[in-house]
Amino acid sequence: MLKDYPLNKVFMLIEPGPVLLVTTASGRKKNIMTISWSMPTDFSPNIALLTGSWNHSFEALMKTRECVLAVPAADLMKTTVGIGMCSGTDTDKFQKFGLTAGKAQKVRAPLILECLANIECRVEDYVEKHGIVVLNAVKAWIDDERKERRMFHAVGDGRFIVDGRTVNLRKMMEAKLPSGV
Amino acid sequence: MLKDYPLNKVFMLIEPGPVLLVTTASGRKKNIMTISWSMPTDFSPNIALLTGSWNHSFEALMKTRECVLAVPAADLMKTTVGIGMCSGTDTDKFQKFGLTAGKAQKVRAPLILECLANIECRVEDYVEKHGIVVLNAVKAWIDDERKERRMFHAVGDGRFIVDGRTVNLRKMMEAKLPSGV
Repeated sequence: MLKDYPLNKVFMLIEPGPVLLVTTASGRKKNIMTISWSMPTDFSPNIALLTGSWNHSFEALMKTRECVLAVPAADLMKTTVGIGMCSGTDTDKFQKFGLTAGKAQKVRAPLILECLANIECRVEDYVEKHGIVVLNAVKAWIDDERKERRMFHAVGDGRFIVDGRTVNLRKMMEAKLPSGV
Repeated sequence: MLKDYPLNKVFMLIEPGPVLLVTTASGRKKNIMTISWSMPTDFSPNIALLTGSWNHSFEALMKTRECVLAVPAADLMKTTVGIGMCSGTDTDKFQKFGLTAGKAQKVRAPLILECLANIECRVEDYVEKHGIVVLNAVKAWIDDERKERRMFHAVGDGRFIVDGRTVNLRKMMEAKLPSGV
């Protein structure tokens, strides 16, 4: 069950550096791509990611100026890699991987209901020189009931690192934390 | 003991999304800042990170057009957070945190010898509109003998996630891996 997730905390889903799924919808065709190069760029919240014409979703992203960033948990690791290994040109990835497309509130790109979190985004800018797409998050959702909540990180050579233990240094950092987190 | 680390694998140090230390040298003054918003932008290898005038190091970075990205391991977590909590305006951070500045080969910014890896970089571009600095890595080093090799990731609210177990899906991904990794 997805619940509202506050926009001022969206950067906390991206800052740890998890692998992300990005959905787009162009006309009646929806697609998903796997992205492992991303970062927050401010608390507004804006998020930068790296993509380009080598990804089939890129055209839809540029045309519709909308997408959803879905955050998969560790139990979706093989699904996430599989999504990255085939192309939306000839594959309905929702069908192929048994994923459920949910209706987003502010964009036409679909949510992925199996994911830990979903972030509805509009394209704010495209820095063509570097292939950097800057997104603005307009609505976010979290699955509060999901058991597996660990994200995972790509190394780049086929290995993936699952989140390990969490260390809380909040007291040390209190003076520099953005308000409300 | 630091050894050469191949440039074509540098993106693998950044892609997982670890917290980074960034050193600069301006004249005789060296400094360190903590950065947790970064991503690779290509395999050349270029790396984007988020910073701005709120960081004392930013001026030196823009002036010298050089820095070193040092990758701390989990045993340096408190040191890394401490570095982020004070300013180079009034603190010699190498001295305060007992870190050793090593001589880099291609830039004047220092290596941090206690770190797992060090990446010597030149500033390739500054996308002022988004505060994104694009770096080009020109030389990299790894400490092959260091025992603690787990990186750590910032959540953004004072919590940090240490690398957990590694899953190898190389066989699944073989067709899409860049050559040589």
